[in-house]
Amino acid sequence: MARWEPDAAGRLRRAAVELFAERGVESTTVAAIAERAGVTERTFFRYFTDKREVLFSDQGQFASGFVIGVETAPAGASPLDAVADGLRKGIGFFAPENRQGARVRASVITANPGLQERELLKMAGVSDAMAAALRARGVTEPAATIAAWAGIAVLGAAFAAWLDEAETRELPELVEEGIRELRALGLA
Amino acid sequence: MARWEPDAAGRLRRAAVELFAERGVESTTVAAIAERAGVTERTFFRYFTDKREVLFSDQGQFASGFVIGVETAPAGASPLDAVADGLRKGIGFFAPENRQGARVRASVITANPGLQERELLKMAGVSDAMAAALRARGVTEPAATIAAWAGIAVLGAAFAAWLDEAETRELPELVEEGIRELRALGLA
Repeated sequence: MARWEPDAAGRLRRAAVELFAERGVESTTVAAIAERAGVTERTFFRYFTDKREVLFSDQGQFASGFVIGVETAPAGASPLDAVADGLRKGIGFFAPENRQGARVRASVITANPGLQERELLKMAGVSDAMAAALRARGVTEPAATIAAWAGIAVLGAAFAAWLDEAETRELPELVEEGIRELRALGLA
Repeated sequence: MARWEPDAAGRLRRAAVELFAERGVESTTVAAIAERAGVTERTFFRYFTDKREVLFSDQGQFASGFVIGVETAPAGASPLDAVADGLRKGIGFFAPENRQGARVRASVITANPGLQERELLKMAGVSDAMAAALRARGVTEPAATIAAWAGIAVLGAAFAAWLDEAETRELPELVEEGIRELRALGLA
């Protein structure tokens, strides 16, 4: 296949998630993913090291929004306010039109403990990156680590709600609700 | 070895952590662990399914303290207060005399991405269990999930400090500091 391949990586991601959902991860081959995406196996391996990598390959891009949000929070913002700005910027990664695709991806990950672990490691990476950005703003430890993980807690709860078919609100509103809940945790 | 084996599981755990630290996980065999613990391989497999399991096998016992602490918090306690009680009870799992062993275990886990992922899944399990205990107290979602994860954030920061050779305070004091920091996150 010598023709130009617009967004080959994106098509490979979508093809892989579809096949994982249809057949399971174990029964899906790289050849089948490449075929569904209309590219060669060689093209697959130009972007990904293995079939599971397809679900996680955008880690750096994913974390960067959260970090930039923390970095660009107003001077004098509290750690929680800075993390809230990180979440607001970070969730720009998820467009409303990707909600169904995110559901399929989540169902694949939920069905596979090894992928659940990898997803948690990815979220830990985002937390570490936000904590570093907080320390760069002068937030000391353990406040930086606790604030970053509390932000991940809000994100995780909002994201789980977003994937729920019964939930109609979009991610930004769900994140704002979570931030309010986090602020209110100490209230009986 | 037909004689009675007092605390064989505990001795196997200690032997495994020692050998993992000395030789690395890959180069440590079940046979070597059993030999160091003074038991047979058969005894090893009575307690654990594989060599990595040794580092994680006390999951149920580990989570139970956190859950009981949440369950027995005073009526009318805020979600954060209930989680704080969960942490206070849960860290009873770690005795001061286990601090050096915990350091060795952590160094083994840090050196192995697969084990880091498993450790995160273990902490996610504790978080899920605390969130369920909060819901049983009438805390609604997303507050229950956010409070539980925020508690895990405090625990993680306190535990990391406890493992630091430069830190002289014990875990209860470090957890109280973390809870104070969590309450103060919204303050600029």
